Amino acid sequence: MLERPDRLRVVLVGPRNPLNIGAAARAMSNFGFLQLRVVNPYHVAFREARSAVGAAPLLAKAEEFKSVADAVADCTVVVGTTSVGHRELQHPLRRLELGTRLIRRALARGRVALLFGTEKTGLSNHDLSHCHWLMRIPTRDEHESMNLGQAVAVCLYELVRDARAANKTGKTIRLAGKAISRDATGKRATAGEVERISKVLLEALDLSGYIKPIAAASTEERVRRMVRRLDLSSQDAELWLGMLRQMLWKIKAK
Amino acid sequence: MLERPDRLRVVLVGPRNPLNIGAAARAMSNFGFLQLRVVNPYHVAFREARSAVGAAPLLAKAEEFKSVADAVADCTVVVGTTSVGHRELQHPLRRLELGTRLIRRALARGRVALLFGTEKTGLSNHDLSHCHWLMRIPTRDEHESMNLGQAVAVCLYELVRDARAANKTGKTIRLAGKAISRDATGKRATAGEVERISKVLLEALDLSGYIKPIAAASTEERVRRMVRRLDLSSQDAELWLGMLRQMLWKIKAK
Repeated sequence: MLERPDRLRVVLVGPRNPLNIGAAARAMSNFGFLQLRVVNPYHVAFREARSAVGAAPLLAKAEEFKSVADAVADCTVVVGTTSVGHRELQHPLRRLELGTRLIRRALARGRVALLFGTEKTGLSNHDLSHCHWLMRIPTRDEHESMNLGQAVAVCLYELVRDARAANKTGKTIRLAGKAISRDATGKRATAGEVERISKVLLEALDLSGYIKPIAAASTEERVRRMVRRLDLSSQDAELWLGMLRQMLWKIKAK
Repeated sequence: MLERPDRLRVVLVGPRNPLNIGAAARAMSNFGFLQLRVVNPYHVAFREARSAVGAAPLLAKAEEFKSVADAVADCTVVVGTTSVGHRELQHPLRRLELGTRLIRRALARGRVALLFGTEKTGLSNHDLSHCHWLMRIPTRDEHESMNLGQAVAVCLYELVRDARAANKTGKTIRLAGKAISRDATGKRATAGEVERISKVLLEALDLSGYIKPIAAASTEERVRRMVRRLDLSSQDAELWLGMLRQMLWKIKAK
């Protein structure tokens, strides 16, 4: 059983279609996830979805953000959804069945953001640079890309799915539900802490001439992903931030 | 793995909304079930769905029937979907997790019809009388009824779901967060590579005034341990070394 559904944040990035926003909200309500965040929605669409008859109450209290960074700042794990397509992925990519296991475990420790991209193009490379890892619904190769509302429904269903209901012997579930010893470094850093580290590091790199103007965007994304791969504890994040700030100060002090 | 997806017939009974018909078709195509049957659709809706841009080819060859009896005549097992509601059910009712197991088994032997009712009211008692048993998606009591397209997506996903995919990386899971970065980026950094990072970092910190003489030894140890906790891949170690060297060069270049 999923213990803390209240800790999940479903984040729609740049949704364009009010019907999709409404459908995502409905699926959330069906499966008991009530915290919706929206980043830069197409405004007419968001207003329309909110005022639609029968819109879930959760749409009325959906939070709106200007950037992915802001929308995930208080989350300890940020997961992007993707249909893969032809993009070169530099993130760990997990099938839904495994990804949701990791999300369930992360929800026991803190907030988790689950990102869905805009209808046509999905999450951009910039959006992805805020993610710790990616999750993929096992659609067939010939038709990978799912409708947004349906993708949300399938992901949330898998989160509430009860393996015991399929298997009365309960063997699978005992393995799945077994308490895993936490790693020694304790509480994970929030996305906001990680982003602060990325920012200071990027500024220091920029001033040091590490970032070449011609490749600035891709270098930035690479650095962001790399910082997230560190999977820092909250304590270590603080130490790194202190060290990098000191170096940055020195670099600037010329 | 599901052996015979070609034997499943998704049957929409009396659908009213072209968007729902289209969404159901899209989910079918996503998950590899290509045989759609429609019973007494609202005709304008069916025509509209069929002619929609991007409609799955399977919509074009959807079969139309006048009655549920005709639509399921060649199937050996007929399963109705329901959100239960207040109806008195006289059929076995199975949660999706168990129901799909039974459907998979039945597909190995013959055709199976999976019925979805009309948007507002679901399957009628008459429709249900053609079913062998009923299946229910585990939505929460406060909001049971799902959107038709989303219900189809969730049911078909559960049919193609691969339980092994959730258990595939048992070791990864035991190690939680750390292991995620491990399998994504491959070979671990050697102790020598890690030590080179520590050295450059310590020199940069020293020149930046981060390391106070009075606590130099303990700060060094702390930094060394911290760098090792990162558990870097060989590739990431190289990137970090490059970044730190560049910052160190800048700090020294005064």
